[in-house]
Amino acid sequence: MNLVEIIARKRDGIALSDRQISELIRTFTDGSLPDYQMAALAMAIYFQGMDRDEVVSLTRNMLESGEVFNWTGIDRPVVDKHSTGGIGDKISIVLAPLLAAAGMAVPMISGRGLGATGGTLDKLESIPGFNVNLSMEAIRKQIKDIGCVIAGATKQIAPADQRLYALRDVTATVPSIPLITSSILSKKLAEGLDALVLDVKFGSGAFMKSPEKAMALARSLVMVACQLGVPTTAMLTDMNQPNGRMVGNANEVNESVEVLTGGGPQDVRNLTIELATAIHAMTGVEVPFDAAQLKAKYSKLLDGGEAMENFERMLHAQGACWTRPLDCEPAHPVIAKREGWIVEMDAEQLGWIVIDLGGGRTRLGDRLNHATGIEMCSRIGDQVVNGQPLANLLCNRNDFRKVNQRLLDAIRIGEEPPETLPLIAGLVTNENTWTIRND
Amino acid sequence: MNLVEIIARKRDGIALSDRQISELIRTFTDGSLPDYQMAALAMAIYFQGMDRDEVVSLTRNMLESGEVFNWTGIDRPVVDKHSTGGIGDKISIVLAPLLAAAGMAVPMISGRGLGATGGTLDKLESIPGFNVNLSMEAIRKQIKDIGCVIAGATKQIAPADQRLYALRDVTATVPSIPLITSSILSKKLAEGLDALVLDVKFGSGAFMKSPEKAMALARSLVMVACQLGVPTTAMLTDMNQPNGRMVGNANEVNESVEVLTGGGPQDVRNLTIELATAIHAMTGVEVPFDAAQLKAKYSKLLDGGEAMENFERMLHAQGACWTRPLDCEPAHPVIAKREGWIVEMDAEQLGWIVIDLGGGRTRLGDRLNHATGIEMCSRIGDQVVNGQPLANLLCNRNDFRKVNQRLLDAIRIGEEPPETLPLIAGLVTNENTWTIRND
Repeated sequence: MNLVEIIARKRDGIALSDRQISELIRTFTDGSLPDYQMAALAMAIYFQGMDRDEVVSLTRNMLESGEVFNWTGIDRPVVDKHSTGGIGDKISIVLAPLLAAAGMAVPMISGRGLGATGGTLDKLESIPGFNVNLSMEAIRKQIKDIGCVIAGATKQIAPADQRLYALRDVTATVPSIPLITSSILSKKLAEGLDALVLDVKFGSGAFMKSPEKAMALARSLVMVACQLGVPTTAMLTDMNQPNGRMVGNANEVNESVEVLTGGGPQDVRNLTIELATAIHAMTGVEVPFDAAQLKAKYSKLLDGGEAMENFERMLHAQGACWTRPLDCEPAHPVIAKREGWIVEMDAEQLGWIVIDLGGGRTRLGDRLNHATGIEMCSRIGDQVVNGQPLANLLCNRNDFRKVNQRLLDAIRIGEEPPETLPLIAGLVTNENTWTIRND
Repeated sequence: MNLVEIIARKRDGIALSDRQISELIRTFTDGSLPDYQMAALAMAIYFQGMDRDEVVSLTRNMLESGEVFNWTGIDRPVVDKHSTGGIGDKISIVLAPLLAAAGMAVPMISGRGLGATGGTLDKLESIPGFNVNLSMEAIRKQIKDIGCVIAGATKQIAPADQRLYALRDVTATVPSIPLITSSILSKKLAEGLDALVLDVKFGSGAFMKSPEKAMALARSLVMVACQLGVPTTAMLTDMNQPNGRMVGNANEVNESVEVLTGGGPQDVRNLTIELATAIHAMTGVEVPFDAAQLKAKYSKLLDGGEAMENFERMLHAQGACWTRPLDCEPAHPVIAKREGWIVEMDAEQLGWIVIDLGGGRTRLGDRLNHATGIEMCSRIGDQVVNGQPLANLLCNRNDFRKVNQRLLDAIRIGEEPPETLPLIAGLVTNENTWTIRND
């Protein structure tokens, strides 16, 4: 069957076979399948979707287009977390050393800012000297020595995804659940994991605005990862306001260190511990599994300094060192113009403001000012009075004048207290889905 | 608005503005819009369609990507016919000189075989010396001197369509009514027409298998052409069996000459006269318009030799000459194996058989054997007896053995006489659509 017939099948809603998908990915990776045919196919997939077998096959073939880490000789459970991206999402920076402190190996391949959301690599580069460009061999060595690493993807990891992602970005074919699923998992499964936990965010600051779409993505991710032999759980978490108080780069690292030393905002601490517990449960290390006991254990690893010790070891191994909180631009308060309750935030807009302050890129290769950002002084449900600071903008005076009103517009103050949502709205484990409430 | 946003709008079902479409076609024609973005957009158009304004804008912009014939100094009405393609469709060869004999100018830009259907240019090249590669200036001169020409498209005509058509062919985005409409009309309207008639075929040998799809295409074509200022009528015609008896190249030219000299199969003669009458009505030359009188006039032009005279002048102008019927391969009868009524034909299959006999291309640049083909001895509704020839295959003995059974399989003989369809099933004129029956 030729490539035009394969595109026509997908266009007409007929499922592609494993052999057809394998041929597509093979020829796309070696460059013999032209971009224009893959672009037409990606758009057909956007409209027609893919069934279970197709998404599993697509993910497996993209994963196998590159190399997979081999952990022979490493006896720790190899685990990771992936977030679909949010505003102020600094969980990875805390979670990787925390899990290492609990005896896990965490070879975390991370990314840079995408759309309005910041990137873990960009944030960590606020720390002078921190090197995110490691070879597969260097990553392997650091896992052996220290138990955790946070680095960028190497060229050997899922090259089909690297090429397809770049093409989807310029052909309006990014928001497709089968394509998102195969893109995320082909990279994550290349880490050679024993267990994976997914933080699938929904809300004004997330890629998926509705819980329903986030749930559909979570189910697809969990189904495919489990089919490919990696025990995986997804948490659906609320991203209608930032995680924690800090949005930016250096200020987010500072807040992460607060959490790593037993302090910091409750929501970041709680979500980190929930994700750690979910991973731990899947490794089968703790039998019988007792969630309350595990949460207590992870709390202790944060409060007792073990997580921070692992963070400092990771910094040393990657060329940096923690001496004191990182410097930030001066704080300018954004003042409430009325009284009431904070009922809603446009969290995505907060992300765009940080980008406009120089904390993110508007084009490829832009250099960042890591010292800018936002410090939120209020959360949804808080009662505020006229004249009260809602947030501080970390930036110079000129920039403050430019974005002050935009930040005010992104925080809606109403007459009545809103219904507040639990941070974790749902959980997806293999074939089972249920909703839990934090109460 | 950038190109990715334009693709995303169409993907989400939002209409594109004239300015956006103009920018798309301008950049696609000059090569700055990459094929992969146009491929994704074409697939999005396949799924989301286009509204009236969009198709009109797309067609106009594609038309204006190239040159348009200017007929200053030519006082005949400039007219043409376009067929969506069928098996044994030789109408153009008869119609162009017939209309010229009635005082029209017919600058007919034709094509080669596409899919299972033959091409007018391929058929005419059966005549030794006939040249289809004329410059715009040569076409203009021939129209002035003789009144009709049948030639291939020059590079100056709708270059955006030439590039887009090649891309659609390899990205499974051919069967989209807005894209078909703009492709056909951007080329036809470049002829600078005063009136256009469309032969939109449906059935087993047509691109559109159902009358409903053909009607949708006909309405789109008529609406857009009329919006762009060219009076246009479409006839929906039955293509469940070949037009006439002959399918091939040289044999179809011979049959065309029979019709041009007052003989030939009734269906070809009737359809040619109907199309001529429809064009004539639109030019406003005959007022008051009397269909019966016009049909009689065109019958006379065929029977009296004037149409044939114009055909011979066209041949001379394009380097050829008519002396006697063209030679064909020897005829081998295909014998009915049972008695009954012919109830159905797979006309597309007849086209593929001719291609396999060397009468069409299986890849770009294949040389044709113009002398091969099929001569049908029966039509749908005919009663046949066991042992009766259903058709003759014009080919060598080896090829006959290879395709004899396929031809038998393409002609279904049943127990009961079928309901026969009128050749012309409907008519679409500007905003009005009605169905007529031949009775």
